[in-house]
Amino acid sequence: MPDPVIISVDAMGGDIGAAVSVAGVDLALERIGPSREVRFLLHGDERAIAAELARHPRAKAACEIRHTDQVIAGDEKPAVALRRGKGSSLWNAVEAIRDGQAHAAVSGGNTGALMAISKLILRMAGGLERPAIVASWPTARGITSLLDVGANLESDAAQLVEFAIMGEAFHRAVHARSGARPSVGLLNVGSEDVKGHEEVREAHRLLRDTGLELNFFGFVEGNDIARGTVDVIVTDGFTGNVALKTGEGLARFFADTLLESLRSSPLAMAGAVLAQGAIRDMRRRLTPPGGGPLLGLKGTVVKCHGGADAAGFADGIKIAVDLASSGYADQIARNLERLAAALKADAAPKEAVT
Amino acid sequence: MPDPVIISVDAMGGDIGAAVSVAGVDLALERIGPSREVRFLLHGDERAIAAELARHPRAKAACEIRHTDQVIAGDEKPAVALRRGKGSSLWNAVEAIRDGQAHAAVSGGNTGALMAISKLILRMAGGLERPAIVASWPTARGITSLLDVGANLESDAAQLVEFAIMGEAFHRAVHARSGARPSVGLLNVGSEDVKGHEEVREAHRLLRDTGLELNFFGFVEGNDIARGTVDVIVTDGFTGNVALKTGEGLARFFADTLLESLRSSPLAMAGAVLAQGAIRDMRRRLTPPGGGPLLGLKGTVVKCHGGADAAGFADGIKIAVDLASSGYADQIARNLERLAAALKADAAPKEAVT
Repeated sequence: MPDPVIISVDAMGGDIGAAVSVAGVDLALERIGPSREVRFLLHGDERAIAAELARHPRAKAACEIRHTDQVIAGDEKPAVALRRGKGSSLWNAVEAIRDGQAHAAVSGGNTGALMAISKLILRMAGGLERPAIVASWPTARGITSLLDVGANLESDAAQLVEFAIMGEAFHRAVHARSGARPSVGLLNVGSEDVKGHEEVREAHRLLRDTGLELNFFGFVEGNDIARGTVDVIVTDGFTGNVALKTGEGLARFFADTLLESLRSSPLAMAGAVLAQGAIRDMRRRLTPPGGGPLLGLKGTVVKCHGGADAAGFADGIKIAVDLASSGYADQIARNLERLAAALKADAAPKEAVT
Repeated sequence: MPDPVIISVDAMGGDIGAAVSVAGVDLALERIGPSREVRFLLHGDERAIAAELARHPRAKAACEIRHTDQVIAGDEKPAVALRRGKGSSLWNAVEAIRDGQAHAAVSGGNTGALMAISKLILRMAGGLERPAIVASWPTARGITSLLDVGANLESDAAQLVEFAIMGEAFHRAVHARSGARPSVGLLNVGSEDVKGHEEVREAHRLLRDTGLELNFFGFVEGNDIARGTVDVIVTDGFTGNVALKTGEGLARFFADTLLESLRSSPLAMAGAVLAQGAIRDMRRRLTPPGGGPLLGLKGTVVKCHGGADAAGFADGIKIAVDLASSGYADQIARNLERLAAALKADAAPKEAVT
């Protein structure tokens, strides 16, 4: 475990920029406590960052500013960001990993730009094509990690297995209670082995038979996400993105409907006042962490929601610190090698095997 | 509009059977009121049904029993149900449509069996392959119809357009305020025209350019479901099924978490007592209708949830009555012809066109 852990922060990313990034660093330091030393490189406008640090002495003591006045806009196309982004706060935050100055990077910037730039600077690990994005989903039993939620629109069986390998390593490093081996489920429309389309069935076979270091549960369905049936749920980026956004939309709708109902009569309003602590507690339990890593890169990059507040940004930092302090990358590399060997054996002509 | 509308009911389907079916008929009659005459053929065990009808005089006056002692089990495989299901309550309920005795059928039985038997007895309309299942989803603006939610695992562009045609006709007949033309969105991972995989992009082109009688909105994302951005959302059966079940799981999780939070302290409990009317109202607004049609058949078949209570079964009956009283099948047929013509023109060699 590196000591201190050094986190490189794109302080200008996100909808608000330095105010949220610095407040997020401060809150993360408070949550992590004195047991682990964490230091930060804050990339961005020196004056804006220094002004925020002046308001957060705890953060100030742990941060170093790396000035740049270049910023990648939230709506910049990835190809444009790749061409013109060099020297920006996002670019420099990622480059600090490659240059050995930081163990992980955190950004609330444009997802497409962050993915493209991270891929260019850090490269993908062991034959992977594109980073996968993992979402941490609050459930009846804690947190379920769902991936991919947006990077890979169509995923073949081998990619689904790669997601399983990466998601399990992520979950173990960030969410699992010590020693517990996370269970992994494959999202499908039925729980019988015969259902689902070809990629899903083939991924099921690979996960069951390939001798990966995984606690594979089998198929799960959409309702298993909130139920917390398994720790990690694997699906293609199209389905995962739809499921995630469907859930986000529903959560907002439920909260709005609840508020509206509670304001509908004086009696209900009085009840809401009495129950406000409980309602706040419920909201806290239903709020997912404000960030997630891009998995599969040779280096740890965590994306925070553009609209994240300080608490959400602190979640992202905490995830970066947990990942940087773990052996998750080695674990992924080992399992990817096993998968590659199994796929090679599958592809070999049967004559050669017998 | 047929007068009276005659609904054929598989009275033994669903987890509970005759008690729920008959109570559902009774409740549906109460909701529909005297403005429209509806009569029922109840297929199933005569003694069990008669015993329930004795408790519901309003239903008794509108029902005729068609006895059979055969029932298809809830876990029967579709292929087995097809081979051995003849003469069962489910089979007879569907057959009554083909024989001109009923305008629509309602069943809470096994989905796979209902689909296979309906397809065999009624056949598919205009070149369609398999029935699509539509879910009615409560949203911030009313109801959004989502399809397909489970029948068709992989859907090419033409099938997605067929879903749009069927879903729009369904929504217009069942959920739309009179005269309003429902808007139709195509589920994707981004709202820009360039995103998404090939089938979705091609379906977008067809919906935009084919001259269908549709109010096509364009792409929508998962969070647009609960937001009610459009009236009808179209996606493949894999994604739709995952989205639906994700939503169902979340709704249960939210309700459980709310209850748990409200029971966590005496103060919160007192608040919950005061607010109970509002909480009940919220639950009512968040509960989807207990049934949905199998679309694309030459005949109207509505599937109720196996676990539906009388209110859910009554929802299914109401949907069957609305569909049987509308011109939705003609509307679907007209738009399917337009689509077929457009696809044929697309496939024609360019020389022949110029």
